[in-house]
Amino acid sequence: MQFYDTGNFLEITAFAEKLADLAAPVALRYFRQKLVIESKADASPVTIADREIEAAIRERIRERFPDHGLFGEEHGLDKADAERVWVIDPIDGTKSFITGMPTFGTLIAFLEGGVPKVGIVDHPALRERWVGRPGDVTRYNGQPCSTSGRTSLAESILYATTPDIFTGQDRDCFESISKRVALRRFGGDCYAYALLASGHIDVMAEVGLQPYDYLSLVPVIQGAGGVITDWSGQALGLNSDGRVVAAATPALHREALAALNAA
Amino acid sequence: MQFYDTGNFLEITAFAEKLADLAAPVALRYFRQKLVIESKADASPVTIADREIEAAIRERIRERFPDHGLFGEEHGLDKADAERVWVIDPIDGTKSFITGMPTFGTLIAFLEGGVPKVGIVDHPALRERWVGRPGDVTRYNGQPCSTSGRTSLAESILYATTPDIFTGQDRDCFESISKRVALRRFGGDCYAYALLASGHIDVMAEVGLQPYDYLSLVPVIQGAGGVITDWSGQALGLNSDGRVVAAATPALHREALAALNAA
Repeated sequence: MQFYDTGNFLEITAFAEKLADLAAPVALRYFRQKLVIESKADASPVTIADREIEAAIRERIRERFPDHGLFGEEHGLDKADAERVWVIDPIDGTKSFITGMPTFGTLIAFLEGGVPKVGIVDHPALRERWVGRPGDVTRYNGQPCSTSGRTSLAESILYATTPDIFTGQDRDCFESISKRVALRRFGGDCYAYALLASGHIDVMAEVGLQPYDYLSLVPVIQGAGGVITDWSGQALGLNSDGRVVAAATPALHREALAALNAA
Repeated sequence: MQFYDTGNFLEITAFAEKLADLAAPVALRYFRQKLVIESKADASPVTIADREIEAAIRERIRERFPDHGLFGEEHGLDKADAERVWVIDPIDGTKSFITGMPTFGTLIAFLEGGVPKVGIVDHPALRERWVGRPGDVTRYNGQPCSTSGRTSLAESILYATTPDIFTGQDRDCFESISKRVALRRFGGDCYAYALLASGHIDVMAEVGLQPYDYLSLVPVIQGAGGVITDWSGQALGLNSDGRVVAAATPALHREALAALNAA
């Protein structure tokens, strides 16, 4: 069943989009709902939505690709040694979700040999979806999109979800890059990376991310002309340290890395 | 032409909604557009949208209510001594707008004797609108809405647009309230106040706001059961100092004021 061995991952991408289609109505059913019949006393609406989406996606993948691995926020890693692995974040931006902010998203990544090949960044409440795969430019709601092409930090817009993720040395690094940009803003979670892919912002720098937070972003950013790595410039994989920097162009990425490491 | 002297401001509110309807397509025409034929070399898309919207709104008000005052971000105050004054922010959240974030909004306030009576907080890109007026609860897309009813800071969600607005003593005050809440987040501009009116978040604390940033929020927050004042607890008017605190309930507002002033 090597649907995807032509190198363009068309079948895998179509399947991944179906998974996102499946997740969206579940997320929206719980978004901004305060009163939920809770099966467990400690379950919040977002936790329930998270579990329900991950269980549904897990079932579909098991059915269609029984030999694939699967790594999700809720249930951890199945088939750790599989060549092909799906990495899922049912609701990225939990704190946006619980505060009524529509920028939360569902993240789906498909990895082969540890390399993220296909990425979906889907925003159910905003009806906006970014899709990255080999052999095509990144698509925003079906249309090609690209980064800003910006090459200088001094002209760039920097985003991070919140300053509160940075402590100690990481905070110094973040201040170091902040001082060099034209504008820094907070908020957005995965949505800010998607805005980078569409050319509205230029740089993201964050720490403390999990593989299910960043792996889907890799094909989306790369397919739009951007660069995304860890803070030492290494490719992102399942075992990265959670420090992520994304930039509109290779030149801007080099400057961002230098700025982060100048602190 | 005292359409609005019955005390419920129905005519004024309907007219204000028409102004918001007029603004929305203009805002959306410039949102996320990088290439704009610019009449002036220094004009950005958001500046052009701002001016175009304010000019259109100004014309409609002059036509319909020639004796009313008008205060807008672009053109300043007309008829400063009028009993009835409109206060307009064509695009609140300029930095969201220029970074592709759909949380920017159009703000329209109607004041009588210096008191904000009617407020519209409209988000064209999100198709979400909050309307507050005397004699009705606040409406979210036509449906009644209310704050969370939260009464304790320890259980509250606090938002501010960005930590970068706070300097000196204001920063200490903001840290003082931040330490006492369950969660603090950044982002949102006027959208965060609207989320407060709908019960998704509980407290906002900001500084450096202009009358056109905060006056429309007053009827929206109050009509949803919340309280919004300056940091000394005084009612907001055209001459407030730009420090704003909003909370879901009177009790929470008292605690928020105490926390801000404990620094």
